[in-house]
Amino acid sequence: MSDQLTQRILGELEALVLIDPHTHINPHAAASTTLADIMGYHYYTELAHSAGLPKEQIEEPGLDPKEKVGRIVTRLDALENTTQVSWLLEICQAFFGFDDISITADNWEALYDTAAAKMAEPDWEQQVLSQSKLEKVFLTNDFDDPLTGFDTSLYIPCLRTDDLVFHLTKVETRERLEKATSTSVTNAASLRSAIGSLFEHFTKNGARACAISLPPDFSPRKIEESTVEPVLASVLRGDTLSATDADTLSCFVFWSLAEFCAEYSLPFDLMIGVNRRVYEDGVFQGQDLFDKRTSLILYRQLFNAFPQVTFPVSVLGQTSNQELVSYAWIFPNVVTNGHWWYSNIPTFIEQDCRSRLQAVPKTKQVGYYSDMYKLEFALPKFGMYRRILAKVLAEDFVMNLGWSEERAVELGKLNLRGNVETIFKV
Amino acid sequence: MSDQLTQRILGELEALVLIDPHTHINPHAAASTTLADIMGYHYYTELAHSAGLPKEQIEEPGLDPKEKVGRIVTRLDALENTTQVSWLLEICQAFFGFDDISITADNWEALYDTAAAKMAEPDWEQQVLSQSKLEKVFLTNDFDDPLTGFDTSLYIPCLRTDDLVFHLTKVETRERLEKATSTSVTNAASLRSAIGSLFEHFTKNGARACAISLPPDFSPRKIEESTVEPVLASVLRGDTLSATDADTLSCFVFWSLAEFCAEYSLPFDLMIGVNRRVYEDGVFQGQDLFDKRTSLILYRQLFNAFPQVTFPVSVLGQTSNQELVSYAWIFPNVVTNGHWWYSNIPTFIEQDCRSRLQAVPKTKQVGYYSDMYKLEFALPKFGMYRRILAKVLAEDFVMNLGWSEERAVELGKLNLRGNVETIFKV
Amino acid sequence: MSDQLTQRILGELEALVLIDPHTHINPHAAASTTLADIMGYHYYTELAHSAGLPKEQIEEPGLDPKEKVGRIVTRLDALENTTQVSWLLEICQAFFGFDDISITADNWEALYDTAAAKMAEPDWEQQVLSQSKLEKVFLTNDFDDPLTGFDTSLYIPCLRTDDLVFHLTKVETRERLEKATSTSVTNAASLRSAIGSLFEHFTKNGARACAISLPPDFSPRKIEESTVEPVLASVLRGDTLSATDADTLSCFVFWSLAEFCAEYSLPFDLMIGVNRRVYEDGVFQGQDLFDKRTSLILYRQLFNAFPQVTFPVSVLGQTSNQELVSYAWIFPNVVTNGHWWYSNIPTFIEQDCRSRLQAVPKTKQVGYYSDMYKLEFALPKFGMYRRILAKVLAEDFVMNLGWSEERAVELGKLNLRGNVETIFKV
Repeated sequence: MSDQLTQRILGELEALVLIDPHTHINPHAAASTTLADIMGYHYYTELAHSAGLPKEQIEEPGLDPKEKVGRIVTRLDALENTTQVSWLLEICQAFFGFDDISITADNWEALYDTAAAKMAEPDWEQQVLSQSKLEKVFLTNDFDDPLTGFDTSLYIPCLRTDDLVFHLTKVETRERLEKATSTSVTNAASLRSAIGSLFEHFTKNGARACAISLPPDFSPRKIEESTVEPVLASVLRGDTLSATDADTLSCFVFWSLAEFCAEYSLPFDLMIGVNRRVYEDGVFQGQDLFDKRTSLILYRQLFNAFPQVTFPVSVLGQTSNQELVSYAWIFPNVVTNGHWWYSNIPTFIEQDCRSRLQAVPKTKQVGYYSDMYKLEFALPKFGMYRRILAKVLAEDFVMNLGWSEERAVELGKLNLRGNVETIFKV
Repeated sequence: MSDQLTQRILGELEALVLIDPHTHINPHAAASTTLADIMGYHYYTELAHSAGLPKEQIEEPGLDPKEKVGRIVTRLDALENTTQVSWLLEICQAFFGFDDISITADNWEALYDTAAAKMAEPDWEQQVLSQSKLEKVFLTNDFDDPLTGFDTSLYIPCLRTDDLVFHLTKVETRERLEKATSTSVTNAASLRSAIGSLFEHFTKNGARACAISLPPDFSPRKIEESTVEPVLASVLRGDTLSATDADTLSCFVFWSLAEFCAEYSLPFDLMIGVNRRVYEDGVFQGQDLFDKRTSLILYRQLFNAFPQVTFPVSVLGQTSNQELVSYAWIFPNVVTNGHWWYSNIPTFIEQDCRSRLQAVPKTKQVGYYSDMYKLEFALPKFGMYRRILAKVLAEDFVMNLGWSEERAVELGKLNLRGNVETIFKV
Repeated sequence: MSDQLTQRILGELEALVLIDPHTHINPHAAASTTLADIMGYHYYTELAHSAGLPKEQIEEPGLDPKEKVGRIVTRLDALENTTQVSWLLEICQAFFGFDDISITADNWEALYDTAAAKMAEPDWEQQVLSQSKLEKVFLTNDFDDPLTGFDTSLYIPCLRTDDLVFHLTKVETRERLEKATSTSVTNAASLRSAIGSLFEHFTKNGARACAISLPPDFSPRKIEESTVEPVLASVLRGDTLSATDADTLSCFVFWSLAEFCAEYSLPFDLMIGVNRRVYEDGVFQGQDLFDKRTSLILYRQLFNAFPQVTFPVSVLGQTSNQELVSYAWIFPNVVTNGHWWYSNIPTFIEQDCRSRLQAVPKTKQVGYYSDMYKLEFALPKFGMYRRILAKVLAEDFVMNLGWSEERAVELGKLNLRGNVETIFKV
């Protein structure tokens, strides 16, 4: 009975047209052109590498896309158990009519060619959007992205700010900032002004969020201009900063971003907990890990200081989920946001989804985002989430609390889409 | 089959008369007089605030109770998914014959009036106790509570000591202590003596526990009188203490409490992990959160030093549960105690209950306490716990281990009540 | 349907002959001779002690084995709910024909005598191995174990190195090292050389792993010989080291072990997270606990420095499991290894097993080891794990992903045995 109930709820959720509130889509090349675009996703290269495929074979300069796929296929058997490979199979089944149970040495070439032919169809991007029931897709734009040449009502800009907060010590970052804003950054005031120009530019072009990923030990705090001034002067002279001074500068920029989020009414997506380049010899984008010893208490000053800014928060560690639930339960401006990266597998999602639905106001939960680099991934990733959500709605709400199916479905739709509309005003 | 089995076990557990081993009941006004007493519980005000109701509307001075309920009702829809609101509905259904699926703008006034009429019945308190199958209710008494004017065999005193340990730096606390004990606190010896008087007073009046809530970074250790003497002298002079000195004083008082628990044979309830006033603009009692970076290793010296004192331990963070299970498995004097606050939702309770039943001696587990402020909450809260407990007993013991239903029910009764009797000697 | 499916998969897994990749078996007395060998396992003595049996009664010098069992039996009722006692019952049922539901004052003596008679049979060890379907059993050998007098193709040596890393400050340890290696340890070079001799000796005698358990705050790093030289000189003079110097020495030895693991192609089992002697008055081996505030980020330098060494990693805290999953997902040389100690109960195993199977390459997971001290424990412990594994395979792979039963069973066999063969080259 529970299974049939879950299936009926799932059917309703599957009928819903989606807005994907966080992706890494390149709007100028949103869909894939070969299977290498899909299997080149770091989830596959890093797992193949982890299972023994040498980095040199994966990242050989000038490597032909088909050859690259062939090499990764040699390791797929070792990964067949992973959720990530189940996404790959679902993509191939849904879009390319693949019906074998796995991608092997024997069938991959035919699959590659079928996929390439399909992807060459002139309306492929539209086909994917339509089959995936995607109405709008949030982007992750570099701060100096001109935001031109694409439909910003379909691909919604989002100001990504990691470089500004953590790499302003690099001359390239400062040059990019100066060029993008036609501002000469000489002190705290002109830095703030340059940052303000970015918000002006992004919001004028339909941006609906500011976003950043943060290391586990980052703790934002307000820095006075007078405090940052000598640090900034030192950077501009080309000095190497001490860790303390670098943190002061990061905090100043971060706090300025929060102030502009308030001024421009932008939600500020915080993706908390990633350590970059932990595995130095890992493949591209397959080098980052985390330290679970972090806490949202580090954001206490921020959440108190900006009641008018909504913070959709993602946590990398599953052990941070209860804090997120509790902070969203108490702070009006903290919202739970999706299931990020190492927490984006069914067993963690189910626990996290369940606890959020049991304790956080229903209006303060963004259920899921795909985090995808290519459009084809929305289908299996949202598919995975919808199946879990349908199960939780069936068990916890219909069966345990006696809710009607209709009411449970409405809660699911709010979680999947309604809250994206209200929270990001899209 | 599993469902029917669970229902049969649940039926047996529901027949059990309870002792609630931790509440915040005011014995002079134990039951509610209007729905505002129930919906004024911080679980509702803080969630309504989190969902957008301004604090000023919730805490307006002189606000009429009915008007307050009406305001909170405007946000209930946004909270309908929460376990907390499911408790509210269960209260209204069980006690006031409410049979709509939610409390809305259209039905709340009738409900308010029905509830008020019911609560005005002269034996309302007895009705609630009886319908909730409550035989005894532990209190949380300020250290200077005279403990008079109520039946201490029904409402069992418990010496709450947060103020002594963490607020002795405040002149009001010291004045309250001196007044309550008719002692002049001038040095460590007289401070200890005053604390001893409290234990004398409380145990003479039937107290069955000493209790305290503790921040995540607190680590009790023995402090010699000679070490605390200058610190105490400084406090008595009205100086502001350094953090280190304040911690020394806290540890001295805390250790003294443990010594008196040994002397007076009182269990010492430790509720570990809360940071106070994290959300400074939150509503009353809706400002506290936590830092999951804590460990029971901080209590190593304490647990070793007082083998004769039983420590029923509650942890705020679900990520602390495995430590609690392990420490209770090893230390004879550590007992698992309920599911506290941010861990008191079904998905966390189920995991925690399961692991405790799988690894901690059955005699060392206090299954649940309500933590309630008004009597009406015992019914839905214990109801929630009993349903989870019945499910775990059915699945893990009857189905997986082949236990008889009778044996599983006995384990459940020990967990729900038997251990409260033996551990708190009540 | 799910239940029958699980049973069919379980049947297949139960037919598999096992290699147990981590135990504390004494190969000269692998099986038990009385029930006291089984109930003297620290899991029972510590739980009985935790439930109130005085340490003096458990560890009375010269205590008769039967009397010891009788004393522990007095507390078994208080422990009947624990997984540990379910192992005990399964042992008695499977090996001694016991068919009561619990071991009590009334039946224990008959059971003791039956067991003693059975264990006295000349081929008892072979019976246990055969009934438990055990083909090979890894040991935990002291570094100065001569490794003679037993069949090293059945009982596979493993070089345990805790003493070298953490107790080289003790003169006994250094004397044992010098004696075992016929080396005079006078400086860093001779220390390294002595350690090298151990690897020579162990690998010559069929060792298949180096292993160590590590406290939660240990963070290995490369130490230059020139840095350790004065520290070592100080130790050799008999000085007491500062905590910093002791850590330097520990890191030097640890790093040398990793270098020899590379040289001798031995996997290096890391068992991360235990604090020793936390409960000072606990029974033998029942004194250790943990601090969950640890992270695999502490092993960042190690995992990067030794790509050619395989690190099968066990974590003591269940809250460390997601890090382990993520590090094994990214680092080619990190492998998940079993479910250790306080994490070795069904509710934690199920969550951990599920997440590993969903996100770590299938070839990089050692499903389970028994950690046993006596052979009889493999049967119930692997039995527990197989039941959980069968459930996860049935639910997550056959039902949710549509895998065939055969394919799920193959995944299970790889997890239970195949990976042990390839990872440990056995």
